[in-house]
Amino acid sequence: MFTFRRHAMPGGRELLLYGRQPHDMQPLAALPAEPPASAPYLRWHPLLGEWVAYAGARQGRTFLPDASACPLCPADAGRLGEIPFADFEIAVFENRFPALTAGEGGVAPIDGISVSAAKGRCEVVVFSADHGSGLGALPLDRLALLIEVWGARVKALRDEAGFAFVLPFENRGEEIGVTLHHPHGQIYAFSFVPQRALMAAKAQVEAPVVVRLIDELPRALLLDEEEAALSFVPPFAMYPFETWLAPRRRVAGPDALSAIETESLARLLGRAVRRLDGLFGRPMPYILTVQAAPRGFEDSFHMTIEIRPFRRDSNKLKFLAGVELGAGVFLVDVSPEQAAARLKAVDPEAGR
Amino acid sequence: MFTFRRHAMPGGRELLLYGRQPHDMQPLAALPAEPPASAPYLRWHPLLGEWVAYAGARQGRTFLPDASACPLCPADAGRLGEIPFADFEIAVFENRFPALTAGEGGVAPIDGISVSAAKGRCEVVVFSADHGSGLGALPLDRLALLIEVWGARVKALRDEAGFAFVLPFENRGEEIGVTLHHPHGQIYAFSFVPQRALMAAKAQVEAPVVVRLIDELPRALLLDEEEAALSFVPPFAMYPFETWLAPRRRVAGPDALSAIETESLARLLGRAVRRLDGLFGRPMPYILTVQAAPRGFEDSFHMTIEIRPFRRDSNKLKFLAGVELGAGVFLVDVSPEQAAARLKAVDPEAGR
Repeated sequence: MFTFRRHAMPGGRELLLYGRQPHDMQPLAALPAEPPASAPYLRWHPLLGEWVAYAGARQGRTFLPDASACPLCPADAGRLGEIPFADFEIAVFENRFPALTAGEGGVAPIDGISVSAAKGRCEVVVFSADHGSGLGALPLDRLALLIEVWGARVKALRDEAGFAFVLPFENRGEEIGVTLHHPHGQIYAFSFVPQRALMAAKAQVEAPVVVRLIDELPRALLLDEEEAALSFVPPFAMYPFETWLAPRRRVAGPDALSAIETESLARLLGRAVRRLDGLFGRPMPYILTVQAAPRGFEDSFHMTIEIRPFRRDSNKLKFLAGVELGAGVFLVDVSPEQAAARLKAVDPEAGR
Repeated sequence: MFTFRRHAMPGGRELLLYGRQPHDMQPLAALPAEPPASAPYLRWHPLLGEWVAYAGARQGRTFLPDASACPLCPADAGRLGEIPFADFEIAVFENRFPALTAGEGGVAPIDGISVSAAKGRCEVVVFSADHGSGLGALPLDRLALLIEVWGARVKALRDEAGFAFVLPFENRGEEIGVTLHHPHGQIYAFSFVPQRALMAAKAQVEAPVVVRLIDELPRALLLDEEEAALSFVPPFAMYPFETWLAPRRRVAGPDALSAIETESLARLLGRAVRRLDGLFGRPMPYILTVQAAPRGFEDSFHMTIEIRPFRRDSNKLKFLAGVELGAGVFLVDVSPEQAAARLKAVDPEAGR
């Protein structure tokens, strides 16, 4: 259970404060609203069957500021931030540089190429007021709260606001282009179901692929087990050391998890990130996505939390290149079984 | 027209020398054969409907050697290289660390996940004996020869050896993980048609998407025109400054180009790379792919040469992150029309 406070920001953006404790601090001065930018829009890629999103205003977004100018730290007298409070547990707010918006979007038509307003919503999720923290360092209860917040946002955006697909994710590490170091994730709510999510959802209508995977998982791929969830390297991993977390029971998304499933996943999440960080003795750059059922697929989808790491060796990054991006075929240097064995050899509690 | 010499390397790998002049040099000592490694294999990703390739031996591949130890430079008395000749025009040889092989591959079956030998062929294409060259610096006739070599390899691998899909490509720039600086590309021949190539091919069976795009291309997106080909930013570009080249006539692949089409594309190719290099005054990291018809789609496919650049601003790289890799939706900061205007403002002959 969590408490929840809604706060209106300059320019009408919403700030949501989630916590175990009620939040009743007085707001401080806030960063001024961004001048209105050209609205983002979508164009249809006729060869790949996918929308491409154009958002010119994002080019000017904040880029690797000093820690002393971090816009995600709690505000104080000397500095304005995105979150105009002296403290918080988890804060969610609408992105200042959104790629998807509520607006209509003025769109220049081009012969033969479908266009559309980029309807949707982009949120930033700040996991902690502590600039130096991260998913591997957060206490168990904060990780559980984060999973509950993901659930609350999926429910609000998919079931209440009516978006077709909601993707909570975290990009971590300057190596993969993260522009703010303060520990945070994001949530994108789409008005359409992206091709990739649709394929994964349809595959599970045809056969219970993830249910079966969890039931029949080879021991060699299992990383950690908790009462109600497990973590593993999928046998079809596309990235070296790719790590998935899933509840044992088929649950369509974080909005439908029981308390014990949330706690099991929270334990596994901290441990998975610490295994990845421990693997080469330095923070692992990764992309974490929470794969929840698109609207209409709640009865067959099995949620997963998927971590795609980008370091393949202590001083080598995994890059996607011609074969991955030109053909869509992923080349992996480390077999899933080897990856699981190496991750299991890391002590996830060392140095805690 | 080109001449062609076949040379057997230690361990049975093939080296092919293409040139305008007959190649009759005596071979020097060659790098010894690699000890046999575990064969690569494929596993089916049941959610995404795509094969994933596992090739453990690639983890040990040569990584950013000094120029003095470059394995792609012509061999000389003091150093062994991949190409055991004192000079060459364009050299093609089988990759020492292949992700796809002719072998059967011992494959451990896993319940519920299809597996297969990774049948195919991986070739390295060295564009020039000059370590410091690149597509933007090569003379026109060498670029034309390169396009002819791509055509010869597509013909040999798809039409004669019977592979389903052949992808010539170049990964350029240490920023995107290139492990050897000497100017070179690669060719992958697949025994199956990857999902992404299949979608693009099927889309063109249903409607002449690329033909129409070229016929109706807005002037604002056109970069350069030659007698038989043109270069442009596609209206559905997924990367900032993405650049496509295509013959005006519908040609299914580089194997079917006329001499004048080859020359037009060669002119456009050098110019496109110089525009990208000139944009921020430094070499542009990019992925270039030659999209040729998969086997069976020769009657409807329109070939393109596609360059995906990875610098979005003078000191900022474009990274793919949660939304691109987790949902498959590309976010682009620069509109195709702005990208084309900025590329057109670069003088592609400056400093030549």
